[in-house]
Amino acid sequence: MTPSKSRKAVILLSGGLDSATVLAIAKDRGYDCHCLSFAYGQRQQIELERARGLAARAAAVHLVLRLDLDKIGGSALTSDQAVPKHRSGAEMAGPIPATYVPSRNLIFLAHAAAWAEVLGTGDIFIGVNALDYSGYPDCRPEFIAAFAKLLNLGTKAGVEGDAPFTIHAPLLHLNKGEIIKKGLELGVDYSLTHSCYDPDARGMACGACDACLLRRKGFREAGISDPLEYQE
Amino acid sequence: MTPSKSRKAVILLSGGLDSATVLAIAKDRGYDCHCLSFAYGQRQQIELERARGLAARAAAVHLVLRLDLDKIGGSALTSDQAVPKHRSGAEMAGPIPATYVPSRNLIFLAHAAAWAEVLGTGDIFIGVNALDYSGYPDCRPEFIAAFAKLLNLGTKAGVEGDAPFTIHAPLLHLNKGEIIKKGLELGVDYSLTHSCYDPDARGMACGACDACLLRRKGFREAGISDPLEYQE
Repeated sequence: MTPSKSRKAVILLSGGLDSATVLAIAKDRGYDCHCLSFAYGQRQQIELERARGLAARAAAVHLVLRLDLDKIGGSALTSDQAVPKHRSGAEMAGPIPATYVPSRNLIFLAHAAAWAEVLGTGDIFIGVNALDYSGYPDCRPEFIAAFAKLLNLGTKAGVEGDAPFTIHAPLLHLNKGEIIKKGLELGVDYSLTHSCYDPDARGMACGACDACLLRRKGFREAGISDPLEYQE
Repeated sequence: MTPSKSRKAVILLSGGLDSATVLAIAKDRGYDCHCLSFAYGQRQQIELERARGLAARAAAVHLVLRLDLDKIGGSALTSDQAVPKHRSGAEMAGPIPATYVPSRNLIFLAHAAAWAEVLGTGDIFIGVNALDYSGYPDCRPEFIAAFAKLLNLGTKAGVEGDAPFTIHAPLLHLNKGEIIKKGLELGVDYSLTHSCYDPDARGMACGACDACLLRRKGFREAGISDPLEYQE
């Protein structure tokens, strides 16, 4: 698991709790971390500020790319569609909610692969989680496994074999409490992260969207108090 | 093969000969065509002008999205790296050339899938060709097949089954001459297309890059004169 000192990795960094933890894990494994974030047309910009802060604190290279996902639409995160609030665990296990962004992880991972190829590495880290999540199809293990196979068919690095791709998803089978405990062991400062889908103008988390509910559940499970304040 | 009148399809439209032909094929099959192009940081902008013209002529919806692939680099099409010229067929069958853009078709197809999902369709058309091409891995049949499988695992539409994805690649097994003959049957005006990787400031094709060589070979094979002029 421990690469040579100079081994690079691309880390998808949203500025949230999960990707902040993944960055710490990749650093701990000895990778030279190259963080990748997207100004994709998300309604709220605070997560990008958080991503910048986290990358700077980790002394990692950070690339922010533009995408026009708001022009495609279809999501409460890129339009004025209402963000669902106060959903139960059973509801989160039900139909995919309005906060799903069509093909988002696929588009993010495809860019990560492009950058990895240019950097001469096949290691990509992503903070997907298939336990405490909103049921997004592009967070599931079968998607991640199929994506890695696709890269090894459809890229120069994959085909020529000089840098076969590995998609590292170290949080895939952890619950939110375990993720937070892991991050705290590695020194993650969760006050620098942002999770909320629907913050107010000052960036304060709503406390009631899926992302807030899962985060708060995680801190409760970990027996730690969340450094963030909430509107409710 | 013929959809109901209202069936939508997303057509990846670069402004080149192949995608112009694919647009004509999709229209001929009765699809309501939604063309998708990218301002991805390509050095030359003429292909986007051509895409706009082709979509307008087909009375199709046209969406142009921005991507920052030039910030990722690694290609002669997004940087000042030299475009290889005068390559033989044997050379084109050799190592992947500098005009390869890392993950380009993957990123394009991922956006097409997102838009298709919002449009409520699973039909995506792409003009990849695995006979007369530069050996790009993301043009090969195995990549296209794996991508369709991935979509059916990693998207809401794929998982919920309301619009399973089909990646239509009607040119995959045609040579350039056959593509041109097919397009002419369907009324494609190839004077409105652009193929060259390295045009001059006026947009005139170089005549010697892979794209020009394959295009010229195609017109020779079809026994038709190419409506474009070349620098050499």
